[in-house]
Amino acid sequence: MAVTDEVPLIDQHCHAVLARDPDRDEFAGGLTEAAAAGTRDRWHSSLGLAVRRWCAPVLDLPAHAAPEDYLDRRAELGWREVTDRLLRATGVERWFVDTGYAPSPGLEPGEVCGAGHEVVRVEQVMEGVAGRPDSPAAVLDAFRDELRDRAAGAVALKTVVAYRSGLDVPGECPSDRDAEQAAQAWLRSGGTRLTDPVLHAWTIHEAIRVGAELGLPLQFHTGFGDDDLDLREVDPLLLTDFLRCTRDSGAAVVLLHCWPFHRNAAYLAHVFDHVSVDIGLTLPYVGVRADDVLGEALELAPFDSVLYSSDGNVLPELHHLGAVLWRHHFGRLLDSWLAEDVLDVDTAERLAFGVGAENAARLHPRLGRPTAR
Amino acid sequence: MAVTDEVPLIDQHCHAVLARDPDRDEFAGGLTEAAAAGTRDRWHSSLGLAVRRWCAPVLDLPAHAAPEDYLDRRAELGWREVTDRLLRATGVERWFVDTGYAPSPGLEPGEVCGAGHEVVRVEQVMEGVAGRPDSPAAVLDAFRDELRDRAAGAVALKTVVAYRSGLDVPGECPSDRDAEQAAQAWLRSGGTRLTDPVLHAWTIHEAIRVGAELGLPLQFHTGFGDDDLDLREVDPLLLTDFLRCTRDSGAAVVLLHCWPFHRNAAYLAHVFDHVSVDIGLTLPYVGVRADDVLGEALELAPFDSVLYSSDGNVLPELHHLGAVLWRHHFGRLLDSWLAEDVLDVDTAERLAFGVGAENAARLHPRLGRPTAR
Amino acid sequence: MAVTDEVPLIDQHCHAVLARDPDRDEFAGGLTEAAAAGTRDRWHSSLGLAVRRWCAPVLDLPAHAAPEDYLDRRAELGWREVTDRLLRATGVERWFVDTGYAPSPGLEPGEVCGAGHEVVRVEQVMEGVAGRPDSPAAVLDAFRDELRDRAAGAVALKTVVAYRSGLDVPGECPSDRDAEQAAQAWLRSGGTRLTDPVLHAWTIHEAIRVGAELGLPLQFHTGFGDDDLDLREVDPLLLTDFLRCTRDSGAAVVLLHCWPFHRNAAYLAHVFDHVSVDIGLTLPYVGVRADDVLGEALELAPFDSVLYSSDGNVLPELHHLGAVLWRHHFGRLLDSWLAEDVLDVDTAERLAFGVGAENAARLHPRLGRPTAR
Repeated sequence: MAVTDEVPLIDQHCHAVLARDPDRDEFAGGLTEAAAAGTRDRWHSSLGLAVRRWCAPVLDLPAHAAPEDYLDRRAELGWREVTDRLLRATGVERWFVDTGYAPSPGLEPGEVCGAGHEVVRVEQVMEGVAGRPDSPAAVLDAFRDELRDRAAGAVALKTVVAYRSGLDVPGECPSDRDAEQAAQAWLRSGGTRLTDPVLHAWTIHEAIRVGAELGLPLQFHTGFGDDDLDLREVDPLLLTDFLRCTRDSGAAVVLLHCWPFHRNAAYLAHVFDHVSVDIGLTLPYVGVRADDVLGEALELAPFDSVLYSSDGNVLPELHHLGAVLWRHHFGRLLDSWLAEDVLDVDTAERLAFGVGAENAARLHPRLGRPTAR
Repeated sequence: MAVTDEVPLIDQHCHAVLARDPDRDEFAGGLTEAAAAGTRDRWHSSLGLAVRRWCAPVLDLPAHAAPEDYLDRRAELGWREVTDRLLRATGVERWFVDTGYAPSPGLEPGEVCGAGHEVVRVEQVMEGVAGRPDSPAAVLDAFRDELRDRAAGAVALKTVVAYRSGLDVPGECPSDRDAEQAAQAWLRSGGTRLTDPVLHAWTIHEAIRVGAELGLPLQFHTGFGDDDLDLREVDPLLLTDFLRCTRDSGAAVVLLHCWPFHRNAAYLAHVFDHVSVDIGLTLPYVGVRADDVLGEALELAPFDSVLYSSDGNVLPELHHLGAVLWRHHFGRLLDSWLAEDVLDVDTAERLAFGVGAENAARLHPRLGRPTAR
Repeated sequence: MAVTDEVPLIDQHCHAVLARDPDRDEFAGGLTEAAAAGTRDRWHSSLGLAVRRWCAPVLDLPAHAAPEDYLDRRAELGWREVTDRLLRATGVERWFVDTGYAPSPGLEPGEVCGAGHEVVRVEQVMEGVAGRPDSPAAVLDAFRDELRDRAAGAVALKTVVAYRSGLDVPGECPSDRDAEQAAQAWLRSGGTRLTDPVLHAWTIHEAIRVGAELGLPLQFHTGFGDDDLDLREVDPLLLTDFLRCTRDSGAAVVLLHCWPFHRNAAYLAHVFDHVSVDIGLTLPYVGVRADDVLGEALELAPFDSVLYSSDGNVLPELHHLGAVLWRHHFGRLLDSWLAEDVLDVDTAERLAFGVGAENAARLHPRLGRPTAR
């Protein structure tokens, strides 16, 4: 039995699942960050192997079932039963759900098992208030009010500036005047998708302020993701100035995903006490390589700064794989460390429970503590 | 027996071998990307260890033979016999030979065993037509004609823009007018080594067009290489815009070598279906570390996007090591995955045959399929 | 018994230890590159695990002793006895001590065991002469004289330009005229902490000249370090032009620390014969991951270019861990290579003795050779 087997998990960043049966192409599309199902066999990948190995038995199939058999069985059981089985087997007690992107129709994991909590996407708040008030200054005020309202019921804030103007966010907040000018230009152009770097920066600094005040961390998408980002613009090191300037703000920052920059993210968590590092998304995708990637992150990252998540989205297979790959590979890593006498059992347990849930619980004082061990 | 043992290989990027006996310094120079034999012992390296371990027995020496003994035996057998033994033992059925760089006198691997196919270096085509016609526009036309002629008999195109102006190639093709102006400046300065970024970009976009039309992938040197490149300018991520703009062009792009950016290259192959990733050159050089590097590449790269090559050049030892290190280390990696129940045997074989030959065969519809398994 | 067990070490970059008992927070602060002891448990990290495992038994405690027990026992023995035990157990014969940063009161390792040699920090020399002479030109002259004087008694020079204006040092030395203008501005602003890039560049080129003349390598801090650096500015690849321009200068360059850019540093050592790579600092910090990091560095780095150091500083635990982690993990790596028949015993020993001491001895012709094996 691995030290990770009994850890109650907080999945501190995920999304809703699709609340209907996906067709063959939709399922394949859920196995990739590429734009569409495309020309390649999405199953022939580290992630695809992991689905066949780990999810097939949950649907009563042998491990390594052929994709067609998997899809047939999935359709036979129906999405609701499949979702139920896959999510319940994770051992996740709390799901932090980014509501900024959801499949339609969607079902939040917390409706199946465990408790759900909202992660509010700050750009969506801004885009939601655009055009409602009649002046740029009023839009900024409306954003402030709306963000505070939404935050009051949420567990974390999240920014996708990585996808918009990249992570080179200035350390100092733009002046209200500059923000108003940027807002004016944006509103004139329709006030839809926010991409202006000044307005993004202002929005993020505002989120840091609200987060510090209400006790909500600000999560940043960093590292790989959909094909509309430029990987060079999403290295978390681009946030260095921003992190240096906000270290005493009282706010906490979570670097999400991070691959292939997880060592860089670990360094930032090492030198900045308000920074945590999460390698969700990476875990399901890298499959059997999960212990190497975790090992790289743990070189410099303080152990109390590392958080579990799945970034599961659309397919409950991803929520499931995040958890089982974490348990299997992190458990295997810790077992090998125990076998080599790198640490003692108490410390291994503290490390496992910390990454699995307690570090996230500590970051979110509004939550109760996870189930005591 | 490893699952890779019987895979027929396509070495989809290599060069000719030296068709005479190298002296001691020439041999040492073939073991490094440094400018010359220099002051260091080139044998005392991961690549040097691999030559002593894997090539010595092919020359009837014990594994780990001393370098002097190796060179003595090599001279005794003569380059022709040595080349014959080393190349035949690779199990390579097809050699794609970049004719843009060849030792003198040179022998193409396909003259020894297997079938040879040409990879045309597009910068060499441009440099070859320079000065022949009498106007910049005529030079560009001559390039177009010559490229099409050369491509008609070739299997792939290749660009070394990494060595010239770096990989930050614009997504849009420069206008003919801009290309003509650039050509004019270049011709005035002698029309020898092409370095102008606008003319490079035009050349590459033209190659993409010809490649799409005739079914030839365009190979990019990326990552490490000779000491005259700047490693910061050859990160394949610099190609992101270019790849985004060419995704629907019908052209295929192959990212060669990639180290130490092989994870970045894997990401590009993940999000862009027309991109393949090759870690030739890297394999012989990293020696015993080959399975770690392969493992890193397979984290995100779709398995159908990964290609084998050796980038062997001058010394047939490199062509040999590419193949035997691939068989040994990739075989070992797949065996360990089988032992851990990560995948089933059929999928392991599909992965091995895919990377070894079938993915390359699929990219080159003009070729017949490799020997059926 | 591992092949590394009997290697006499040259710790070619370290600092003095604190010559009094640290309090609890000072000790914790010594386990991190973060600004202060801060809010996190510094013991719960790869480095903290290594202290508990490897250092506790040296103080007669069981491995994995609790931090409080460790600190109690440390106080009981007293800093002098602790330092004595930890340093003597390293097997280090020569300590190269960067005197540019020292705890106060400090004790140099060579006062405890082995021989000490000075590493002169060039920025400190410049800052030391500032304001003494009455003109910028005279300050530059005074720097030249003082550097030569200090170098005469030292074993290496070191630059911390990484922390000041970053590693993008130009290949060509700024003119004296430009250096004087920069010096003038700096002196006017008080002549304290040097940050001007032109004056830094001039200083470094001067150090290269003096180093070449007197046979002292110039060490560059590269990669991670205190929180006042920007990790993006300290990638050793930024030195590419500088290294290309100085390759025939007769000077030797040592890239210190390097993580997470150790593969990049290895590439530079591969293509430039005057470049060596040291992964001190990294070793104690990454703990159990040391063999992976060493393996990555050895992919491309010529084996004669790799140097041992601890970068131990303030706490003798760091000097100790550098050595024991190196012996344990590099020994384990070499043992696994021997078991896999990657190399023979003679070559493994040459590699171990080379990295441990002989490569450094060769770089420093003024020193005698390390104890013969």
